[in-house]
Amino acid sequence: MKIAILKAANELLEEQGLSGFTIDAVATRSGTARSSIYRWWPNRGALAIAGFLAETAQKIGYPVTASAVADVKSQMMRVAEVYGQKVGRTISALVAQGQSDPEALRALLDGYVLPRRDEAKKALLRGIANGELRADIDLDVVIDALYGPIWYRILVPHAPLTPEWAATLADYVFNGLRPGAGGAE
Amino acid sequence: MKIAILKAANELLEEQGLSGFTIDAVATRSGTARSSIYRWWPNRGALAIAGFLAETAQKIGYPVTASAVADVKSQMMRVAEVYGQKVGRTISALVAQGQSDPEALRALLDGYVLPRRDEAKKALLRGIANGELRADIDLDVVIDALYGPIWYRILVPHAPLTPEWAATLADYVFNGLRPGAGGAE
Repeated sequence: MKIAILKAANELLEEQGLSGFTIDAVATRSGTARSSIYRWWPNRGALAIAGFLAETAQKIGYPVTASAVADVKSQMMRVAEVYGQKVGRTISALVAQGQSDPEALRALLDGYVLPRRDEAKKALLRGIANGELRADIDLDVVIDALYGPIWYRILVPHAPLTPEWAATLADYVFNGLRPGAGGAE
Repeated sequence: MKIAILKAANELLEEQGLSGFTIDAVATRSGTARSSIYRWWPNRGALAIAGFLAETAQKIGYPVTASAVADVKSQMMRVAEVYGQKVGRTISALVAQGQSDPEALRALLDGYVLPRRDEAKKALLRGIANGELRADIDLDVVIDALYGPIWYRILVPHAPLTPEWAATLADYVFNGLRPGAGGAE
């Protein structure tokens, strides 16, 4: 039943954005009682993020090969592709809502942003372990450098989000983080 | 008179955000006729951006020293400091509004984002000219890598925006763009 609720939640988000997103609408579409939904999610914000995450996270997992740097680069290209579609519009609606609604922002951070950052961290730690990346890098800054520009291009769309652009971004950032590339100033 | 209007516009934005921002309110506060305001700005979105830009741009100009890389790094630290204050809340309100209002988004891009990117481009071109940066870099990607994470931390505030963080970000990105740092993969 949980899966049906999450699927209905994500479909509603994609079709109508946040404005038409209510617990009632999700209950109707998934054929579930409101009480069942509230058993798992405290409010519509949390349910929206959960639906979005369930659908999106499986599309943007990290491959695991011998090169963690190549894994992150190809995942970033995939993210650019996925976020360039309907998902990008959902993200922009969720972020916009979050600017005036602290609860929605908290749900976005806890339900999506921080778990995704943890996944990125694991991939980067593989890169440190196998000698592709310097051991002294601040992983939070690296994740901001790799993924911040992707969110920026969704929210402040001065130019399109493409896999080719994401590949160049990954190359530039990783290029300065290799053990041979010298330390920060 | 133009300066008085822009000053009033920016003050209103800082005090009340976009929700209380109207041409009437700016006219009253600046002691100007509505018709005078409309002579220069076609709508409230354009006026909001212009007021914001007039006040903010002068705080975040680029220094010009022998090192363009150092100039951009210190400007980024200043941006992090300025955006960490009221300006950041204004930016987040403007971006949020832009997600459901194409005219507001256009005003933000044309009135603020693109002019700021042009300034960044000039500074980076100095860095190429003086040999600090590789000549073959894609400046649009570099600007996304340097400034995208700053917007990301304002809009998706998983951690605070600080000058120290901006300095590390600048070091990481520039480290991979030096002539000796090797080409992109």
